[in-house]
Amino acid sequence: MTAQSKLKIGVLGASGYTGADLVRLLATHPNAEIRVLTANQHAGKPMREVYPHLGALDLPDLVKWEDADWSGLDVAFCGLPHGTTQEIVAAMPDGLKVVDLSADFRLRDPEVYAEWYGHPHQALQLQEEAVYGLTELNRPAVQAARLVACPGCYPTAALLALVPVVGAGLVESEDVVIDAKSGVTGAGRKVTQQLLFAEVGEGIHPYGVAKHRHAPEMEQEIGLAAGGRPVRVSFTPHLMPMNRGELVTCYLRLAGGATADDLRATLAERYADEPFVRVLPAGESPATRNVRGSNYAVVGVFEDRIPGRAIVICAIDNLVKGSSGQAIQNMNLMTGLAETTGLEQQPLFP
Amino acid sequence: MTAQSKLKIGVLGASGYTGADLVRLLATHPNAEIRVLTANQHAGKPMREVYPHLGALDLPDLVKWEDADWSGLDVAFCGLPHGTTQEIVAAMPDGLKVVDLSADFRLRDPEVYAEWYGHPHQALQLQEEAVYGLTELNRPAVQAARLVACPGCYPTAALLALVPVVGAGLVESEDVVIDAKSGVTGAGRKVTQQLLFAEVGEGIHPYGVAKHRHAPEMEQEIGLAAGGRPVRVSFTPHLMPMNRGELVTCYLRLAGGATADDLRATLAERYADEPFVRVLPAGESPATRNVRGSNYAVVGVFEDRIPGRAIVICAIDNLVKGSSGQAIQNMNLMTGLAETTGLEQQPLFP
Amino acid sequence: MTAQSKLKIGVLGASGYTGADLVRLLATHPNAEIRVLTANQHAGKPMREVYPHLGALDLPDLVKWEDADWSGLDVAFCGLPHGTTQEIVAAMPDGLKVVDLSADFRLRDPEVYAEWYGHPHQALQLQEEAVYGLTELNRPAVQAARLVACPGCYPTAALLALVPVVGAGLVESEDVVIDAKSGVTGAGRKVTQQLLFAEVGEGIHPYGVAKHRHAPEMEQEIGLAAGGRPVRVSFTPHLMPMNRGELVTCYLRLAGGATADDLRATLAERYADEPFVRVLPAGESPATRNVRGSNYAVVGVFEDRIPGRAIVICAIDNLVKGSSGQAIQNMNLMTGLAETTGLEQQPLFP
Amino acid sequence: MTAQSKLKIGVLGASGYTGADLVRLLATHPNAEIRVLTANQHAGKPMREVYPHLGALDLPDLVKWEDADWSGLDVAFCGLPHGTTQEIVAAMPDGLKVVDLSADFRLRDPEVYAEWYGHPHQALQLQEEAVYGLTELNRPAVQAARLVACPGCYPTAALLALVPVVGAGLVESEDVVIDAKSGVTGAGRKVTQQLLFAEVGEGIHPYGVAKHRHAPEMEQEIGLAAGGRPVRVSFTPHLMPMNRGELVTCYLRLAGGATADDLRATLAERYADEPFVRVLPAGESPATRNVRGSNYAVVGVFEDRIPGRAIVICAIDNLVKGSSGQAIQNMNLMTGLAETTGLEQQPLFP
Repeated sequence: MTAQSKLKIGVLGASGYTGADLVRLLATHPNAEIRVLTANQHAGKPMREVYPHLGALDLPDLVKWEDADWSGLDVAFCGLPHGTTQEIVAAMPDGLKVVDLSADFRLRDPEVYAEWYGHPHQALQLQEEAVYGLTELNRPAVQAARLVACPGCYPTAALLALVPVVGAGLVESEDVVIDAKSGVTGAGRKVTQQLLFAEVGEGIHPYGVAKHRHAPEMEQEIGLAAGGRPVRVSFTPHLMPMNRGELVTCYLRLAGGATADDLRATLAERYADEPFVRVLPAGESPATRNVRGSNYAVVGVFEDRIPGRAIVICAIDNLVKGSSGQAIQNMNLMTGLAETTGLEQQPLFP
Repeated sequence: MTAQSKLKIGVLGASGYTGADLVRLLATHPNAEIRVLTANQHAGKPMREVYPHLGALDLPDLVKWEDADWSGLDVAFCGLPHGTTQEIVAAMPDGLKVVDLSADFRLRDPEVYAEWYGHPHQALQLQEEAVYGLTELNRPAVQAARLVACPGCYPTAALLALVPVVGAGLVESEDVVIDAKSGVTGAGRKVTQQLLFAEVGEGIHPYGVAKHRHAPEMEQEIGLAAGGRPVRVSFTPHLMPMNRGELVTCYLRLAGGATADDLRATLAERYADEPFVRVLPAGESPATRNVRGSNYAVVGVFEDRIPGRAIVICAIDNLVKGSSGQAIQNMNLMTGLAETTGLEQQPLFP
Repeated sequence: MTAQSKLKIGVLGASGYTGADLVRLLATHPNAEIRVLTANQHAGKPMREVYPHLGALDLPDLVKWEDADWSGLDVAFCGLPHGTTQEIVAAMPDGLKVVDLSADFRLRDPEVYAEWYGHPHQALQLQEEAVYGLTELNRPAVQAARLVACPGCYPTAALLALVPVVGAGLVESEDVVIDAKSGVTGAGRKVTQQLLFAEVGEGIHPYGVAKHRHAPEMEQEIGLAAGGRPVRVSFTPHLMPMNRGELVTCYLRLAGGATADDLRATLAERYADEPFVRVLPAGESPATRNVRGSNYAVVGVFEDRIPGRAIVICAIDNLVKGSSGQAIQNMNLMTGLAETTGLEQQPLFP
Repeated sequence: MTAQSKLKIGVLGASGYTGADLVRLLATHPNAEIRVLTANQHAGKPMREVYPHLGALDLPDLVKWEDADWSGLDVAFCGLPHGTTQEIVAAMPDGLKVVDLSADFRLRDPEVYAEWYGHPHQALQLQEEAVYGLTELNRPAVQAARLVACPGCYPTAALLALVPVVGAGLVESEDVVIDAKSGVTGAGRKVTQQLLFAEVGEGIHPYGVAKHRHAPEMEQEIGLAAGGRPVRVSFTPHLMPMNRGELVTCYLRLAGGATADDLRATLAERYADEPFVRVLPAGESPATRNVRGSNYAVVGVFEDRIPGRAIVICAIDNLVKGSSGQAIQNMNLMTGLAETTGLEQQPLFP
């Protein structure tokens, strides 16, 4: 890649919020050119009919993925439902780099996949090939990958907060409680009663308590950080009356005499050179408003009131660092571009 | 009291949201007649100027508390800042029943009070006399009390969830993690930048992480339930972009082989005859939208994914069960009225 | 009716927001007893499954309307879709008083009905019998009626603002511009993409510009007030990111030398004894927050900057005065109860 | 300017929302380098303390404007309160280009200024020199200007909708009714009770009815478009429970046999080559969600139901096209850069 050349890009599943946010970000990416947009339900329509906010862009019309022309594409982003994705990625040309945003290639263990997604995995070889795309924690592998499985939004926030401190042996990996809060776009553009404005506005509620599909993904990576031991995490997400933003509050038991300050120092050092992760000084709190629309993650560390415990909090925009932004960050790495290319947008506040 | 007679009532600090919600609820209470409204900053104004939504009511004008006529009042609600309250209550006529909504009489231990509120308590005798007004957990004492200290909103929700299961020895009282979420009215009508719409809307953030003043209050009551042992709880509140509603998610370690089902059964039995507390069947989640504007508390219990742990969640309206509603519930008890009088309003959803 | 006796009540279409708000309000109505709740899609379920916020109430399970037992009912509220309603009301027992909340019986002229609703009216006799239930403007007819057609939410707010001043000849009935803003519950509990939180939150947009079905209803009543002349109004509703509340801003050309003060005086006099309508003094503005959850309407009048023009603004809660509350107000009148019975709830603010 | 060279920029009043949005946008502007940030109340602080969402940027600390070093700056953006601005701009070095976002230089007529802003103008010569910076309508003058007065947010939206059709004689300039709706950031970061979340959330209300200071500004420009005749417009803004976004609904009387289609065609032609203004096809509505965070304006035209009338609606982001974005657009023009430089960000939806 030279600074001027353009990657030819396809976005599969462009009618979801994740797809739309990919298009939003790619539109100002200097090395990206969107060539294919698929959305089987809306095939034949111009993108602006499905997403009027993108009406100023010159975009290809939506097509069915079966009808897309893959030849000549450099990168495909897959924002399709899990299950479907396996099949489609398996059918793609070999040379195409794939950044997948579904859950299909995140889990290493096919049995865990089958348990949580209700059917055996259909593309085991791809699953094995796929690299887990939490960029900051897996950069060299992402750089070399052809197929990257972007993490879920909750795992992105939680693992950025936890992996370095678990890896450093500062916390007990058996006693991790993650209380998560998310805006509604985490659920996609699904038309269901639970996501109506009148059901969500002016209220909050937990869902999938201790049963959410992002739990095994966190356990896999925390387990790896803990040296391969199997771990179980307590994970409870809550739905918030807002569009974007995700905050995880992690309640941790300290190990081996560690303190909250140790955790903060470890995280600060780990992320010192990271362009998208900021560790706050003592006493400052992350807030979702400070990352809205951007690819940043902000982490804060607090002493707990119970001796021997600490609290680590991480805020991201679930659609950007938790999804489309991180996908582009991975693409940049996979194609030799500077990692921050096209992701310099600052948070939109208020 | 007969069903027709009217209690003569004063509301001190009527210009706060808590004061306004007291007036809202008392306006349809069949045995209440508001005789005095104080608000030193707004003295001389009609209430409708400060709260136009109460403009249809025939209410006394606001006066300074120094100028209020206490003679002939039966009950005073105090919605004043902590500190001030001690002084004012001490000056009230002996026969007046007082329902206090401040923090002044909640803590048994004067040293704990001084530590958290920054000055020695000025009315130790009253502090000793005061009864902790979490109605469902302290009914006989409230019935006999002259001075009731209504709990804070967070303690109300947390203690309803925790006291029965701690008391039954089902959970480890040393390992209680409470992640709380609240609408903005929990902070009152304070005019500060942090509470502007543009700062709060479309975002969430933690505050007072592991340092909030409601922690010692919870510890006091959980400690009592645990047989008098001193306990420390991990308590972190988060500000939500909504007006009303509070949800506490309590992460608990089970004791002595107990299960989540045991917790649910204990809570269900404990609250079986309570008019304002509902324990949900397995699998159902509390949501703040289901209690908005009402005096209800709703509790749900979940098995955690980490073996040996459980999650108890409680939702209330912070201004009603968490403040004004519970205050009226206490008044009803203190004056021999049916406990639900004037509190039959159902939640406003959507 | 005596103060103690109970009306036996059926609510048809209880699974809509209007149905739920009827149940909320009837639950504390001293003379109402809910005997039948219908919801064909949810037949067989307890109401609490469809509306958990009503879980504290002892309510009959939902049934299909075909299976409902009408015998012994005194009043039926119909919250069914237009079209369907005609058929069902026609099949009801003669003695049953019916308060209809659909559009089926609002329009006097069957041709206008057919034009706007796309099919000929199927129950012309009932249409003729039905009384237009804007209580304050049609009280004697409502009192005598067996079948009342409650107005739409927008017409309720607009006509309260306009009919007295049009009727008094103070404004030009040919030049009425109504800009309306409504919370999402005005659209009911329809599960459509347009009503998702993520589509509505943090944004506003007009819809049905100059083509909304409430326009002919307003024209009918304004025309009557104008002495029977046919009129056309300019009416544009906008969707707001909030659950409840409706505000109409009416831009008017003054007639015959009238002033804004004349309009205010006329409205103030007209509504002086009305328990639910308040006309504000000069300089004060209606706001939806001041009527939320209540049956109040608040009206403000302003001089316009263009000479010879004035602005009248009215705020209501679309689900209460704009729907369920007014329906109960009508029921009270039709059954000889005091008009305010069960509607004394004050607005929920914040 | 070459494509690589950097303008040295100062932002005065950087602690307001407008200042923060300027910094957000300038941060990714390829030809901008922020050298000075002033905020007298926060002088000495790093910008990240006042606006944590900008914490990833390397910015100069805040200083008092008196202490700022103007030498070497190319452009100053002034986001100061009206009144103050006059004085400060008068004291700036002659060679400095100034883009003013206050109201100080918008009004041509000093008497009108004095009437609406309560004091005589203190810098009449600058007022005369200043160019009204509604870019699309005044491009050649902006290009040549040293001092540009950016329009208010409401005038920006309204004039984009109205000037071309008034100028073409298609509507009666004496009968323009503008109903406007705005998110809270239109009021800035003022810490007042009216802007608290709990006062604004879940509600809407009009303010400054027919008395808002943006009215004379609209009248000035509409009057110019109407050939210099003095006009009066009816203008009523409403506060919405959202952060960003502004929508003006203009109710117009058609002139000389014009139709809504004529208006749409005129607008479409007028803006055919404009990068930031889109005129929608018949039947489509502008919505603020479709411009959030971006510099776009979207315009829709509708036939009204009253014969001889039409409705033109325009949506913008009040902080971008209504303020900081347009300011940068003007800077680009004034300095010979491509007009869209640094403003390519697409709307953030949801």
